[in-house]
Amino acid sequence: MSDDPVRSADSTPEVMTNKQPGPDAIMQLGLAFWGSKALLSAVELDLFTTLARGPLTGEMLTAKLGLQPRGTTDWLDALVSLGMLKRAGDQYANSPATDLYLDRAKPTYLGGMLEMANARLYSFWGSLTEGLRTGRPQNEAKTGGDFFAALYRDQARLRQFLHAMTGLSMGAAAAIAEKFPWDRYHTVIDIGAAEGCVPAQLTLRHPHLTGGGFDLPAAGPAFEDYVASHGLTSRLRFYPGDFFTDPLPRADVLVMGHILHDWSLEQKLALLRQAHQALPDGGALIVYDAIIDDDRTTNIFGLLMSLNMLIETPAGFDYTAADCRSWMADIGFRDTYAEPLPGPDSMVVGIK
Amino acid sequence: MSDDPVRSADSTPEVMTNKQPGPDAIMQLGLAFWGSKALLSAVELDLFTTLARGPLTGEMLTAKLGLQPRGTTDWLDALVSLGMLKRAGDQYANSPATDLYLDRAKPTYLGGMLEMANARLYSFWGSLTEGLRTGRPQNEAKTGGDFFAALYRDQARLRQFLHAMTGLSMGAAAAIAEKFPWDRYHTVIDIGAAEGCVPAQLTLRHPHLTGGGFDLPAAGPAFEDYVASHGLTSRLRFYPGDFFTDPLPRADVLVMGHILHDWSLEQKLALLRQAHQALPDGGALIVYDAIIDDDRTTNIFGLLMSLNMLIETPAGFDYTAADCRSWMADIGFRDTYAEPLPGPDSMVVGIK
Repeated sequence: MSDDPVRSADSTPEVMTNKQPGPDAIMQLGLAFWGSKALLSAVELDLFTTLARGPLTGEMLTAKLGLQPRGTTDWLDALVSLGMLKRAGDQYANSPATDLYLDRAKPTYLGGMLEMANARLYSFWGSLTEGLRTGRPQNEAKTGGDFFAALYRDQARLRQFLHAMTGLSMGAAAAIAEKFPWDRYHTVIDIGAAEGCVPAQLTLRHPHLTGGGFDLPAAGPAFEDYVASHGLTSRLRFYPGDFFTDPLPRADVLVMGHILHDWSLEQKLALLRQAHQALPDGGALIVYDAIIDDDRTTNIFGLLMSLNMLIETPAGFDYTAADCRSWMADIGFRDTYAEPLPGPDSMVVGIK
Repeated sequence: MSDDPVRSADSTPEVMTNKQPGPDAIMQLGLAFWGSKALLSAVELDLFTTLARGPLTGEMLTAKLGLQPRGTTDWLDALVSLGMLKRAGDQYANSPATDLYLDRAKPTYLGGMLEMANARLYSFWGSLTEGLRTGRPQNEAKTGGDFFAALYRDQARLRQFLHAMTGLSMGAAAAIAEKFPWDRYHTVIDIGAAEGCVPAQLTLRHPHLTGGGFDLPAAGPAFEDYVASHGLTSRLRFYPGDFFTDPLPRADVLVMGHILHDWSLEQKLALLRQAHQALPDGGALIVYDAIIDDDRTTNIFGLLMSLNMLIETPAGFDYTAADCRSWMADIGFRDTYAEPLPGPDSMVVGIK
């Protein structure tokens, strides 16, 4: 914008002045799906896994990834501008973060969530307006499908998915290992454990802890393998079951991460009651999610994750720490508190 | 991340340390389409036009916009967190910028571009991977359609589109009115003028200038109306024609904004040659676009706009100022220079 107001004698409201807010933030947000999709296609095309073996020129990448020259240089340079790649001379290389998290060959890979976003969520979010108008999910359920039922029937895909969940839980798991007074407890079980990322992190960090993970029976083999690969088989056990129909296993501490937001208020309360019943007096429930700030104004990711529950579930929604603490108090937890975790996640702790 | 590295005796690469980069920037970019689509649906649902008449509660908005309560509060609060709405008590209101640019009733409305992004580009970008693999457009052309041909056949839709282009050009037009030495010239014609936003801004600001706009004949009525509404009919004339087959009208200064990037290199050079021929000695061509920085590393929007040309055109691409200046020099412009404009745009000037 120029320094002087752009006005003349016959000025109209369409003549811009420097006193008006600019339209840039609106346009950037409205077209933010461009950069998002550039990254999602990069994960789909194995760009970061390919570059993890060493830097390559645009020409070599075009050949290796089976692309056409048209568009490829713009795509690579856009990823440089977005901080996802580095470029030195004519060679492209991964950034430290994309090398760590988006190389399929590394155990730290968390591209699974982005693969799912690319293959499913991007197009389902295209029907957000319909979701707001109907209040109904916009995923496979619209055409009679059931993503999760199909997923749990296919061990290979299920394992990929459960491993993606490990990527998403790692930061929270490491922080919970530090922030919670584990010296006061002996056993911990993760409810909806997937591969067992959380109990593995907790028991690796705190050698006095034992426990396990509770999940649908189909998750068992992935849990057993993951726990064995960390040398924790003697300390962590898999508990098969369905948390709506089976009682939860007993432990000093239960953890529910990225679970509660999938469900309706009634189901959330039922899960919290189940946990309360399974805990001893003095035991603790740790809930973590992309918990929305109490004022519902700053945690962008938490609020959008709740909209994602509209897209993906019949009645799920995310919630504030105040919401969760009042549900816990109503059910009978005698003390509750909330604490932030890395990224958009927070934990709410309830003491029985 | 905790302050201490999270390591234990049997640590594995999966145990996170605080020395590693976090995954947040990757996840935020990969899921940025969530916030983008929340805004695009808001434009589609006339949220900002509705709120321009005064603040409303979530309940009133749910009723007025024909929505279901489920999801709507999360959507509104997500738009608050993204800076697109304000909330005081239980009342939602537009931000100053969304009130100015996304209220359909205001002449400053530029939601037209976002309407097009919502109705067309969001889903076409879903095929970016196919675009990179084939080098071919991913819009209506894939199924034998032609968006622009259909648009130019429908006066009502064409007028909406041309008005959206006015919104997109307004910031650049105001800046070009300030930054260019207009006192040295008497006539200016905008090539691909749409409604005539640029010549209108230039002649409003500089009373000695006359000129007009060149565009396909179907744009004539929108141009004439817009120019008349600014009281400029006696100073600005519409020149109908096709810039690939008809000679360009003569003027001291020609402007080409958001035009050159639509075309192949050969077509770009043909357009620059046409302009060179139509200018007098000492005349100037002003080209503006979301011009990419010469190093191709910082103008995210310019690089992604170039990818958008892959999605939308058979051979278009965006370019750096250095590219454009060298094309101009090759064609015979004796002097060239580049200057930034507001937002992602820059202009390149060639003097004959």
